[in-house]
Amino acid sequence: MTKTIEHKITPREQDYNQWYLDVIQAAELADHSPVKGCMVIRPNGYALWENLQRTLDDMFKETGHVNAYFPLLIPESFFAKEAQHVEGFAPECAVVTHGGGSKLEEPLYIRPTSETIIWSMYRKWISSHRDLPILINQWCNVVRWEMRTRLFLRTTEFLWQEGHTAHATEEEAETETRQMLEVYRRLAEETLAIPVIAGLKTERERFAGAERTYSIEAMMQDRKALQAGTSHNLGQNFARAFDVTFQDDSGERQHVWATSWGVSTRLIGALIMTHSDDKGLVVPPRLAADKAVVVPILGKKADPEAVIAAANQVADETGLGRAIQVDSRANLSPGWKYHHWEQRGVPVRIEIGPRDLENDQVVLVRRDTGEKQPVPRAEVRDKVDRLLEDIQKNLFERARAFRDEFTFEVDDEKTFREKLEDPGGFLLAHHCGNTECEERIQNETRATIRCIPLDARPDKGTCPFCGAPSDMRVIFAKAY
Amino acid sequence: MTKTIEHKITPREQDYNQWYLDVIQAAELADHSPVKGCMVIRPNGYALWENLQRTLDDMFKETGHVNAYFPLLIPESFFAKEAQHVEGFAPECAVVTHGGGSKLEEPLYIRPTSETIIWSMYRKWISSHRDLPILINQWCNVVRWEMRTRLFLRTTEFLWQEGHTAHATEEEAETETRQMLEVYRRLAEETLAIPVIAGLKTERERFAGAERTYSIEAMMQDRKALQAGTSHNLGQNFARAFDVTFQDDSGERQHVWATSWGVSTRLIGALIMTHSDDKGLVVPPRLAADKAVVVPILGKKADPEAVIAAANQVADETGLGRAIQVDSRANLSPGWKYHHWEQRGVPVRIEIGPRDLENDQVVLVRRDTGEKQPVPRAEVRDKVDRLLEDIQKNLFERARAFRDEFTFEVDDEKTFREKLEDPGGFLLAHHCGNTECEERIQNETRATIRCIPLDARPDKGTCPFCGAPSDMRVIFAKAY
Repeated sequence: MTKTIEHKITPREQDYNQWYLDVIQAAELADHSPVKGCMVIRPNGYALWENLQRTLDDMFKETGHVNAYFPLLIPESFFAKEAQHVEGFAPECAVVTHGGGSKLEEPLYIRPTSETIIWSMYRKWISSHRDLPILINQWCNVVRWEMRTRLFLRTTEFLWQEGHTAHATEEEAETETRQMLEVYRRLAEETLAIPVIAGLKTERERFAGAERTYSIEAMMQDRKALQAGTSHNLGQNFARAFDVTFQDDSGERQHVWATSWGVSTRLIGALIMTHSDDKGLVVPPRLAADKAVVVPILGKKADPEAVIAAANQVADETGLGRAIQVDSRANLSPGWKYHHWEQRGVPVRIEIGPRDLENDQVVLVRRDTGEKQPVPRAEVRDKVDRLLEDIQKNLFERARAFRDEFTFEVDDEKTFREKLEDPGGFLLAHHCGNTECEERIQNETRATIRCIPLDARPDKGTCPFCGAPSDMRVIFAKAY
Repeated sequence: MTKTIEHKITPREQDYNQWYLDVIQAAELADHSPVKGCMVIRPNGYALWENLQRTLDDMFKETGHVNAYFPLLIPESFFAKEAQHVEGFAPECAVVTHGGGSKLEEPLYIRPTSETIIWSMYRKWISSHRDLPILINQWCNVVRWEMRTRLFLRTTEFLWQEGHTAHATEEEAETETRQMLEVYRRLAEETLAIPVIAGLKTERERFAGAERTYSIEAMMQDRKALQAGTSHNLGQNFARAFDVTFQDDSGERQHVWATSWGVSTRLIGALIMTHSDDKGLVVPPRLAADKAVVVPILGKKADPEAVIAAANQVADETGLGRAIQVDSRANLSPGWKYHHWEQRGVPVRIEIGPRDLENDQVVLVRRDTGEKQPVPRAEVRDKVDRLLEDIQKNLFERARAFRDEFTFEVDDEKTFREKLEDPGGFLLAHHCGNTECEERIQNETRATIRCIPLDARPDKGTCPFCGAPSDMRVIFAKAY
């Protein structure tokens, strides 16, 4: 064995936080950097982001959006134009005070989000209803100064996309906001295999400057919630702040209606914490850069060249192109390789040894269940394709069953507190709608309202904390 | 006419700089932003960058590279570790001094390039020869404080890719450096249709921290040179600065060999200044987001619905999918639309009117030459495909003929000075190799040595300025 470095992964039961870091390290997804709060996304992690980007970008284009790029640096004064926005974001900005060796006249903020710089440009571009809608998305980095950081989930700098659209009517803006929430739901469920609940945020949890914020919320394996994407109806707030008006059909000038929406590299964190296990990373096939790996078994009796040749041939036969690896490294045992590729989350392993050669077969092993099945060579392509689909579906179903198992309807404060601590999960509870009550619940229990589900049915009840009447249940949970 | 805003484009002869800005504005490629020196890349401009990115990224992956992402912010002290690097870059950095409301202990530079942060990570990742090579690329934004900016060509913030590789031997690093230069040459010539000269930079023009810098150099229509991409052999400089060593086969520790290479959104500026004309933008088909546009001619006698239906059908028949537009807007004349799409550089226009309907034909018009040809409906797909190929080829040939026309062998100082001013161009001249002489030439004439061409033949002569002996000709030019 020339390569003996193996990563030990702490079991989830023992220390969930350490398990998360171990999985990331073993799969070489990311690394801490010497810059406080900033991470390095390593090639294996970046490949997941690239696949996610490509899928989502296609969805944006199918819904009529185009990409553009706006400056990283935003004059301090721009933030002050929207009162809630500056209050929400200014305290967490990184500030450039010097450039080219001199002190700047006005400090520049590194964008924490780009509403202000983008709406200052929309003012130049919009004058008539014929200039609307504008449906622009931007892929970029943003910086928000964070005290407690965590790889992928919360870092000072992160990568994301931010859509910023401009519309002639309130109704159109609301339709766009909801459309993009649905795009995110599909990305999460169909590509990442993460079941999510789509809903409306309470006033307290709303984006700084929005009229309405929608989100998709997922449950992690430690039964905490993770906000996986948000879509905001900004009303006319930014159009007023930046004086962006258009002449409507009847010749009247009115302010433009806006939306913004985003998902980030945080989704990679959600992915890890939804599917992975004590062996390491588990990646849903649709997102995997390596969908399968062939491991030739080079026993002592075997002719290694014949086995490696067959392994390469099998890889070709799958038709997976660059998405399949053949691990024919010498001096490493098959067992070591199984372990290695399991840690990296490759969905399907194909084993082929001398006996398989004789029987004209291979053995397929699925990463999600560990199940093995011998398969005739002639059927490899079909079986691998089907297995990848099965794994994608199984990961989603398994995560949904888990979430449902730990979602509880609770009606009184005592049960609320008990379930929240043990076993933890999503609490479907009534809420009075009062912000102070919501704040008190968080202070006392650390649970926040994740969202008011879009599919909530009317259901009369009373707030378990203050007893005030309520029309529907919301989702409470501890959250990342 | 409801939409009458037309952009006037200043002829090149009259004012080349204004022409460049007019083309960008008319095609809506980019806009000045309220942030000094920073531009906004508008959707039409960003689409060119996206296509370039996809082509180049595929070439990187074919040559075994993977993408990753490193932090935007770099501690000031990191720059000081490589003496030439800090001297070259520190004066043009943007500096973050405050974050999250507090003054930072150590200022952070926004990356002007990422050698330092990346090599600080390579130190963690490399210990044995089995960890090599590392072949990483990063797509990102960088900031270099510029006094005089110009859309695409020189902006304070720009988008680029930067490759950073680590190797076990000097030879391997040199092979990589040259390989990536060749990748850039192919990108420029085959995709952007920009003929380039690949060569070695002189010591004076070298990247701060490199042992050898190679570049590709293009000639713009005003006969000035533009450096379109660089590839650096960094020797062991960064490995020494960051103490990155590996154990070689024989168990000895030695420093790692490095390369870095990059191209940026500057290439979009090069593209504009190579192909566009007094009517506006000209885009090579392989890079164009819109490869063709169908303009239905809705004369007074015509049944507009029938013509529009035929136009949509023709668009389908080309098989261009999202890369073809049908401009069936009402209340705009065909002439206005021709002008509109010409300004945006769409390679092929397809006209279809009532008479074409009767004759079962369309008229194809190529953007590069203005040439028109009637084509039977049944042949549309074939003819459009062939025309796109022809245009791609013609743009390259035309640009190469132009460059060759304005490339002069000069042997004495007087001719050098004359040709440099009128007509301007590339001067193939001997040079003594002395840095002071090179500097004097620049101070007196504004010409710099663009590169020592890789394909230069040995050719004995004397430096036209100082008379010292020389072994080969280099390329002098005024440059962007």
